[in-house]
This record gives sequence, C-alpha cells and structure tokens, in this order.
Amino acid sequence: MTRLLALLCIVLLTGCAAPALRGTGDLGLVIERASGQVTLVDTSRREPYARIDGFGDLSHASVVYSRDGRYAYVFGRDGGLTKVDLLEARIVRRVLQSGNAIGGSISQDGRIVVVQNYTPGGIKAFAADTLELLSEVPAEYAPGSFSKVVGLADLSGNRFAYALFDGGEIWVTDFSDPRRPQTKRYPAGLQPYDGLVTPDGRYYLAGLFGEDGVALLDTWQAEQGTRRILANYGRGEEKLPVFKMPHLRGWSMAQGNAYLPAVGRHEVLVVSASNWREVGRIKVKGQPVFVIARPDGRQVWVNYAFPDNGWVEVIDTLSGKVVHTLAPGKAILHMEFTPRGEQVWISARDDNKVLIYDTASFAKVGEFAAQAPSGIFFTSRAGRTGF
Amino acid sequence: MTRLLALLCIVLLTGCAAPALRGTGDLGLVIERASGQVTLVDTSRREPYARIDGFGDLSHASVVYSRDGRYAYVFGRDGGLTKVDLLEARIVRRVLQSGNAIGGSISQDGRIVVVQNYTPGGIKAFAADTLELLSEVPAEYAPGSFSKVVGLADLSGNRFAYALFDGGEIWVTDFSDPRRPQTKRYPAGLQPYDGLVTPDGRYYLAGLFGEDGVALLDTWQAEQGTRRILANYGRGEEKLPVFKMPHLRGWSMAQGNAYLPAVGRHEVLVVSASNWREVGRIKVKGQPVFVIARPDGRQVWVNYAFPDNGWVEVIDTLSGKVVHTLAPGKAILHMEFTPRGEQVWISARDDNKVLIYDTASFAKVGEFAAQAPSGIFFTSRAGRTGF
Repeated sequence: MTRLLALLCIVLLTGCAAPALRGTGDLGLVIERASGQVTLVDTSRREPYARIDGFGDLSHASVVYSRDGRYAYVFGRDGGLTKVDLLEARIVRRVLQSGNAIGGSISQDGRIVVVQNYTPGGIKAFAADTLELLSEVPAEYAPGSFSKVVGLADLSGNRFAYALFDGGEIWVTDFSDPRRPQTKRYPAGLQPYDGLVTPDGRYYLAGLFGEDGVALLDTWQAEQGTRRILANYGRGEEKLPVFKMPHLRGWSMAQGNAYLPAVGRHEVLVVSASNWREVGRIKVKGQPVFVIARPDGRQVWVNYAFPDNGWVEVIDTLSGKVVHTLAPGKAILHMEFTPRGEQVWISARDDNKVLIYDTASFAKVGEFAAQAPSGIFFTSRAGRTGF
Repeated sequence: MTRLLALLCIVLLTGCAAPALRGTGDLGLVIERASGQVTLVDTSRREPYARIDGFGDLSHASVVYSRDGRYAYVFGRDGGLTKVDLLEARIVRRVLQSGNAIGGSISQDGRIVVVQNYTPGGIKAFAADTLELLSEVPAEYAPGSFSKVVGLADLSGNRFAYALFDGGEIWVTDFSDPRRPQTKRYPAGLQPYDGLVTPDGRYYLAGLFGEDGVALLDTWQAEQGTRRILANYGRGEEKLPVFKMPHLRGWSMAQGNAYLPAVGRHEVLVVSASNWREVGRIKVKGQPVFVIARPDGRQVWVNYAFPDNGWVEVIDTLSGKVVHTLAPGKAILHMEFTPRGEQVWISARDDNKVLIYDTASFAKVGEFAAQAPSGIFFTSRAGRTGF
C-alpha cells in the first residue's frame, strides 16, 4: 500500500511538473542561425524564457504560427520543418521534407502548412497538427523541367501563391481539398526571385532578377492575369553592383503607399498602392534590405546590406523624411514590431544580441544575448495574412 | 507514513487539477446580457468551453484583452469592471468603479485599462494587472459642469481620445505617467454621441447627435485641431425617425474607404479615407447598425435596427453591391470575424444562439446555445488599435 501510494505520488509529481499556464499573445521566437537553435521570448517581460536546439541549418530560416499561437513552424534551409510548442518549450515534431527549402506558409484556416522547395522544385502541403504529408505540387513548368519555387504566400480560401524562378511563372494553388490541390498558372517574367502578398491578401507581387519590373496579380480578379508594374524596378541597365537582392518581404504598406527597397541604390521607393506608380524616393544610408512599417504606418524602419549593415534608419511617413538614425550593433539582420507597435526588436548578428527599442522615444528599453540572431517572429503573425 | 503519503497525494491531485495548457490566440468571449454571464469560446473547435456568471448588468457591455491574450476586461453598464482569466475560466478580480459606465479601452503597452463613465462623468485609469485605481480625469468642461463621456478609444503612446456629450468637445488624455494624466481639449460640435479611431490609430472621429456632420481630429497632427466632415451625416433636417443611433464603432475601413451606417436611412455610405468625402451609397434592407469589414476588406457585413434586425447583408467591396442576404435568426446584435476572416460569428439574441458562417461559401458551419447573446469579442483584438 505504502509503495503503491509512493508510486502514485511520483506519477503525480511528474504530471505536476507541467509549465505554468500563460497566454501566447505576447510570445515569439528568435532564430539563432549559427547554432541551429531558437530562443523563445516574452514581449511583455522583454526577455527570453527558453532556448531549444536541434533545428539543423537555420540560415534563411522563417517561421509561421498555428492559429492558437501555441505552435511555431520553423522552416530550415535544409528542408527541415520543425513544429515547436512555445508553452512546453520543446520540439513536438520534425520532418526533413526536402533537401533544399526556402520557407513556408500556413493556410487561412490554420490546418495546412505548405513548404516551398528548390530541389526537388515544388511545394508540399502538410497537416498542421501531425505534419503528415497531404499532397505536393511539383513545379514542372515544361515536360521534365522543374523550377525552384520562391515567394510562397498564403491567400484567402486556403490558396497559396508562389513564383517559379526557372519557369518564369506565378502559380496559385487551391488546397480547399488538401489532397487534391488545384493549380492555375500565370506568366511572370524572367527569373522571379521573390514574391509577397499585400496585407489584405489581394495583390501578389513577384520581383524579377532577369529583367527590371515587377509582376502583379490581383488575386481577387485572377482571371485578368498578371500585369507588369514598376518598369524600372530592378538592377537596371547599368547593372549596379548589388550586394544583396532585397527580400520582397522587406516591402511594407503604410498609409496607402508601399515602401520598398531600391535595388542597388541608396533609396527607399514610395509607390502608390492604388495605381502602383512611384510617388517618391527617399535617400538612405545604404542599400536597403528590410523596409518595415510600424503597425500604425507612421514610421518605416530600414536596415541595410553590407557594408552599411550596422545602421538602422527611421522614416516618418507623414514628412517623408528620415527622422532618426540608430547604430544598434554589428550586422543588423532583422526587425520585428510588437503587435501594436510600441516596441521593435532588432537582431544584431555579429554582436550576438537582440536589442529592444521604444518606437516613440527611440530609447533602448532592453537587450539580451543570442547566438548570431537572425529572424525574429512574434505570435501576432498567426492572425495576419502573408506572414 | 501511509497517511502522510496519502495526504501528499491529495495535495498533489489538487495541484494537478489545473486546466490544460493551451494557446490563447483562438479564444474569445460572448456576452450574455440577460443573465449577466459570459460564455468562453474556441474558434478552432468552433464551440464554447466554459460559462461564467457574476458580471452584473451586461447590457451594452464591451471587452478588451490583455496583450498576452489571457485576460479579458469586461465593462458593464453598471460600472462594473471585471477581469476574467480565459485559461482558468474564472473571474480574477471585479470592481464597481462607477454607477453608470459605457465601456473602456486598454493602453498600447497593455498596462492601463481606462473606463469611460456617464455618472460621474469622466474617465478612470486602472492598473491592468491589479485593477488598482491609478488616476481619474473628471469631464468638467465648465466650472461645476460634468459631461457624459462617450467614444473612448486608445491611441499610440498610451493616449486615449474620447468625446464629451454634454461638453461638445473631444479630449485626448496622455497616461504616459499613469498617475499624472495630461489632457488636451478640442471643439467637437453639439452632443457627440460616439467616437472611433481608424485602425491605424491616426484619425479620431466623433458623430454628432445635436447636429449633422462628424468631427475629425488627426491625432498625428492634433495641433491642427478638429475639422468637420460629412456635413450631411446625421439625422438631417427632416429628422427621420431613427430607431437606433448607429454605433460609430460599426464603421469599417476597407480598401481605402470607410463604410458607415447612414442615420435613419436604408443605406450604407462609402467615404474616401484620403479626403473624407462621400464616394457612394449602397441601398440595404434596413437602418444599418453595424457595418463590419472582413479583415481583408473584400466583404462588408451589415446588420440592422428593428424591425429589420433579423437580416444580415454582405456587400462585395469590389463590385459595391450586396452579393448575399442571410436570415441567421431573431434580433441579430453583433458580428465578429476570426482574425484572418474565414469565419464570422453572429449573435441572435432572441433565438438564444450564436451562429458561425464560412465567409467564402456563406454556409453555416456551426452554432451553439447562449442566453440572449449580444457582443462577441475574440482575443485577436489584443493586438489591434481601437478595439
């Protein structure tokens, strides 16, 4: 009897060792690319609360969240898809779904995680709960020819848009029936290298590496097909030295305009979202990489490619001018705003630090150590399209 | 020894009775006005998971959320401010902060909950964690004259905007120092009856009961003061019978336009958010109460005042036409979209039901019983301004 009770107590003790209850709305994840680890963070306490390893190659990693905000899906460069429980701070499942991947996305209903692959070129759909493979769409743009897939973005109705680098096309795949995806194809241009969807989920844009200009698809009227905008956007005739092709994901919408990094130039371009025409250019310190709007659109924060990657500048969208310049640390790779924009978290890879700034006063309000931090992703992305 | 172990087991069992870990991103709360209860809901399972009572008078109740999404702050008509733990499904604290209140708001940093009161007229600030009273701002617009306060909305920098019904002014109070609030006053017009802030937190608008038109304050340039827009918006010269003054909170922004309920007319007005001029009117079935945009702005859902309060219509913002009509139940009081807009939850007070629709197919995908449900509030509001 005594032994039985003792045993019961041990069982119970184990059961009781569960982490404390907490909300997930103020949590996030920082990629530590060098060590294949992630650090879990709390934006209310402004500090990390756990570190997890075993993620493989996290260079160029990205993250999406389950609709309840509890689970992060981490997409690694090596084709690893890892599901992380932010509450228990552990990996719950991990699959090596290809040899060479470049990010993923989650469906509007939160049930399907889709990964885009270079080799073999195509996309794969997984059940968000179990990571079971549901279906795949090989990017076979011509008989026997498969393309790298880039710029995967979620659309309404469990559809996903993406671009074929080698195929020169934009594809939209509908996973309403996850095991029988339906795909439509649209011409894009030479070598689309990245893509994004506007925050309302309406416009899909693909930047071109092989020529200037951007391919635009109005997904609300996809039957009208793609059109070309920003004819001069790209490397240009002179083929300027481009230290890093900016991610299109670095674009932002603010106050009815799109703010985007010029390619090869020390400029941020301002484009009207109503007609997609350029309405202005803002001189900045270097070749912009990320041009990220504070959630209210009043400020746009910009970081830069080498050799200017120690600077961050803040553009006031009301005056159209740079109003503040920061030097947060060495090799600034990414910036993430809290949902209501009162803080921005900045990763300084070569200082092995994440820095936290108050976006109203520009005062540093916190920092912590992280190993070569790159991407920072907060759970508020769970409720947004194209994140 | 046996007894000791047995005791230990009981203690542990009690300790183990804690609710299971879960994310809070897909949770919400339904007000059951008649019984002073709330029902807690899960938008992933599409079902309620708990019911809590003891909220007092919940007519005209509203809710805001802590930034972690764990706690709801319920504002009752009787001045009750109740903090609810969505994970433990219990009331953690309740204060009767006035005799007659009409809703509240939470600061950008999530640390301050502010309540607006009719009697005594003014606002009060409470610590979000403890509900300790931090400070109050009596709405004394002239010596000895206090005004009802309406239209309280959160702005950036822990500021709050609100309107004085009797004072005819818009006030903006800065709680950067929560115990020493600083207030600025702006003229509004005769009897502002409600107000709202645009989703970007920039424009504060106050509707007028005593005259036509709307008072607009650009809070990014508040020094420029208020101006009057929509000169014909209101009850008009003929003083049409108005069954219910529509809540301004029923306004929505979609695709660069504001959609708002006409007063006393069977119309939804479309107003350009760039110049605040009317650009169109859409005929609808009744006097609109809530005109709510799906998060992507493609659809606007409309409900109506008595006697048309059994109808819901869906406007397609691309065509500007009503594309679908539903009769979900008796006395439709409120509608709430899931964060990414795939579902809308609708309260049918006199059917004692909440109905769940797929916004793409318009198919009913769920329903459950609730006692005279009114407001529906999801935790995704925690990450948004003006909600």
